[in-house]
Amino acid sequence: MGEKVEVFGAWFSPFSRRVELALKLKGIQYDYIEEEIYKKKSDLILKFNPVYKKVPVFVHGGKPIAESIVILQYIDESWKDNPILPQHPYHKALALFWAKFLDDKVLPSLMKARRSGEGKDREEAIGEAREGLRALEEELKGKKFFGGEKLGFVDIVANFIAYWSQAMDEAFGVQILTSELQNLPRLTQWCHHFLQHPIVKHNLPPKTQLLALFKSQFVDTN
Amino acid sequence: MGEKVEVFGAWFSPFSRRVELALKLKGIQYDYIEEEIYKKKSDLILKFNPVYKKVPVFVHGGKPIAESIVILQYIDESWKDNPILPQHPYHKALALFWAKFLDDKVLPSLMKARRSGEGKDREEAIGEAREGLRALEEELKGKKFFGGEKLGFVDIVANFIAYWSQAMDEAFGVQILTSELQNLPRLTQWCHHFLQHPIVKHNLPPKTQLLALFKSQFVDTN
Repeated sequence: MGEKVEVFGAWFSPFSRRVELALKLKGIQYDYIEEEIYKKKSDLILKFNPVYKKVPVFVHGGKPIAESIVILQYIDESWKDNPILPQHPYHKALALFWAKFLDDKVLPSLMKARRSGEGKDREEAIGEAREGLRALEEELKGKKFFGGEKLGFVDIVANFIAYWSQAMDEAFGVQILTSELQNLPRLTQWCHHFLQHPIVKHNLPPKTQLLALFKSQFVDTN
Repeated sequence: MGEKVEVFGAWFSPFSRRVELALKLKGIQYDYIEEEIYKKKSDLILKFNPVYKKVPVFVHGGKPIAESIVILQYIDESWKDNPILPQHPYHKALALFWAKFLDDKVLPSLMKARRSGEGKDREEAIGEAREGLRALEEELKGKKFFGGEKLGFVDIVANFIAYWSQAMDEAFGVQILTSELQNLPRLTQWCHHFLQHPIVKHNLPPKTQLLALFKSQFVDTN
C-alpha cells in the first residue's frame, strides 16, 4: 500500500474529520488538502467528485472515492491493522446499520430542528431527533463506545453529536441537542469519552473558529 | 452456514425484493414471511427492527438485520459464492457509492416529483431526478450492467428504476420516469437487460397486482 494517500477536506466539516480520524487511528500517513468548498469548487473536486461536488474526497494512488461512510469502509478494508469495523459479519452489519441511522435519521432531524421556526414543524423535528437519540442511548447500554471498549466505526460517524451539534447550540444560543442530552446519561458520557480520546482531541476544529464560522453564516454541515 | 435464513418482507416492496434477489442469485435457501406492514406491524417486526419498524428484516440463525443495503453486504460477506460486490476494495467502494446515490438521491427525487403538485416544486424535483438519472447513464457507458457483464450489487439496488417507478407512471397515468428514459438510451437498455434476467424475471411482483395496489392507495415505496 505504498501509494499516495490524499484527503480533500474542509477544516470545519465533520465528514472530512471522520476520514482523517480513521487514518490517524490506523496510523496512515496522508496529505491533507484544504478545499474552500463554500467559496469555489476547485477543479480537482469537480473532477474527483462530479456527482456530489463535495468534500471529503479520498484519493488513493490517484483513484478518488466520495462519501465519508464509503471511504471509511474502504480504508478499513485496504489497511487491515487497527480495524475500525468489527470482524464478524453480523457485528459489522450492525455497525453499518447504526452508521446509516446516524446519517439518515439523527443528523437530518437535528438540522431540521435548528432550521424550522417555532411551532409544529419544529416540535415534530425535535420529536424525531429525540427518538433517534434515545435509540442511541439504548444502544450504548453497558458500553463505553458504540464499538465496545474501543472507539470504532460508529463512534467516528457519531462525531457530530459530540462536537459540531453542541457547538451549533452554543453559537446560536439554543439548546436543541444540549437539552436532550440532559435525559441521556449514556450518550452524555459517550460524548465525554469521545472528546477525551487522545487522537480525537487533536482532530477537532478549534472551538473559537468553529463558533465564529457558525455565527458568520449558516453553514450546512450535511 | 447451516443456520436458518428468514426474510420478513412485503410482496410489493422493492427493498425486500432486493434481499430475495441477492439470495436467489447466490442460490441460498430461505424462508419468506409476508408481513402485512401497511395494516399492522407484527410483534416480530417490532422485535427485530425496533428502530425503523419496517421490512425487509433479514434473520440469520435468529439474529436480525435491517436496511436492505446493509443486508446485501452481510449476505455477500457471509456466503462467498457468486459474489455480488466486486472483490477489489476500490471497485467495491464505487459500488457502495452508487448504491447510496440511488437510495439517497435518485429514489427520493423520483418520489418527490410524483408527490409535488404542478409548479416550481415539481420542476425542481424533476430537475433533481434528471440529474441523478444522467449520472447513472454516464456510469453505464460501455457496460451491460452496473456491475459490468454480470448483474451485481448496484443493479439489485437500482431495481426500482426498472420496474416499480415505471409501474407508478402507468398506474397514475403520468410520465415522470418514462419521459426521462427517452433521452437515456443506456439506462433504457439496462432496464431491459435487468427485467430479462432469468432470476430477476421470477422475482418481481405481478404487474396487475402492483398497479391495483398503487391505484388503491398511495403506497410509499421508500
